[in-house]
Amino acid sequence: MLSEKTIKHLKKLQQKKFRHEFAEFLVEGVKGVQEALDSAKEISLVVVEDKKKVELVDLIKSAETKDIPIEFCGRKDIGEIKTTETFPGCLAIVRQEEINLEDLAGNVICLDGVKDPGNLGTIIRTADWFGITSIILSEDSVDLYNPKVVRSTMGSIFRVKVFQSRGVKQDLEILQKSGYILSGLVMNGDSLDKLKLDKDEVYILGSESHGIRKEVENILDKKYTIPGSGKAESLNLAVSAGILMSKI
Amino acid sequence: MLSEKTIKHLKKLQQKKFRHEFAEFLVEGVKGVQEALDSAKEISLVVVEDKKKVELVDLIKSAETKDIPIEFCGRKDIGEIKTTETFPGCLAIVRQEEINLEDLAGNVICLDGVKDPGNLGTIIRTADWFGITSIILSEDSVDLYNPKVVRSTMGSIFRVKVFQSRGVKQDLEILQKSGYILSGLVMNGDSLDKLKLDKDEVYILGSESHGIRKEVENILDKKYTIPGSGKAESLNLAVSAGILMSKI
Repeated sequence: MLSEKTIKHLKKLQQKKFRHEFAEFLVEGVKGVQEALDSAKEISLVVVEDKKKVELVDLIKSAETKDIPIEFCGRKDIGEIKTTETFPGCLAIVRQEEINLEDLAGNVICLDGVKDPGNLGTIIRTADWFGITSIILSEDSVDLYNPKVVRSTMGSIFRVKVFQSRGVKQDLEILQKSGYILSGLVMNGDSLDKLKLDKDEVYILGSESHGIRKEVENILDKKYTIPGSGKAESLNLAVSAGILMSKI
Repeated sequence: MLSEKTIKHLKKLQQKKFRHEFAEFLVEGVKGVQEALDSAKEISLVVVEDKKKVELVDLIKSAETKDIPIEFCGRKDIGEIKTTETFPGCLAIVRQEEINLEDLAGNVICLDGVKDPGNLGTIIRTADWFGITSIILSEDSVDLYNPKVVRSTMGSIFRVKVFQSRGVKQDLEILQKSGYILSGLVMNGDSLDKLKLDKDEVYILGSESHGIRKEVENILDKKYTIPGSGKAESLNLAVSAGILMSKI
């Protein structure tokens, strides 16, 4: 059984404002919690479902080795704390890491106004696959620590640096002045097949419905489009990002 | 107000067995319904929300021009018939088209054991973007006419031919004998950068968790992997499919 205090805290962390206030977030599921434990991230609590004690013995040992507090929960607690339909047996409270603009390195993916948590998570996972470690998230995008985002990163959130911008245009201008090329994926650009791999580029993708905001489009150095011969109006954002990253 | 009979029928179409029995499916939303109306598909009913009569006047006219019955519904009906959280103001009942193996042409994407409706819909949409018009769906995949699949195709379901196999291995063998090359995306294949574009290939993708089933893997002519230098264990299926299709 979890203490009332723990339950209250876990419930608060389902809301963005409290995640921000405590600078913490939740990760659910064996894979996610294990990846958090294997990373250098600071973990303040691991919660394991009572009946999974035996099955998750390795995960429990990892937490013990790192002196991380572990609490066990029963069926009754789960209804209160789960962030998904079916509770996957464990979760962890992880400290948010502060990433600054200067922490970004190599090629950078910049997401402008991305609202869909599944798309953001999938893009972080894809970046991790291709060894891209730097992402910029515009100020009006979905919260990086939204449980659906965290889940769909499949653990990659612990390896990719995501800088949460408070003014994406200004931040991109700073990078541009420091030597970065700003390349945007737009509807009427050059074919992505013509992509030349200069060093230190920022690749900017907008939302499916609104594209890249005008003030950012105005400062782009290059514009690309994924060539298509069919009739669909657009591609899914995570698919576009995946195709782009496969070419970088 | 909708008649009780219509409400009953619409509710039934939310279940796979009735969609199969009536050979019909639902499409929701202005874009989806308009694309259905613009296609050659047979539509038996268009439902428009009362308060959207003015906003959707063009859509209503399209339906009238094609002599398709239109019914209007009130707020009370919506709670009963909607398949999404928020009803987007209109829906249509569309007849399922029977696609046979012989109807497939050009390069073919074959999906083996795909369970996630969003992934399937996104793959159909991506195929439509790249002008790929033939997809094979294995017998144990998610239902093509699941409302979430239909929605995430964003209208592309009306342009891409999806053959629902009852025995994917046997069907692939038939295609192989007729001259098709079977290429599979696996964990340890040749780099996808080495892809040679032969004519008439079937590109097979398995599920994220189980990959391509053994009996299909055994009959593959070629095996490819999307090269990655990072640490993510895998790519999202729709992203993999997108990267593959961008290379075909």
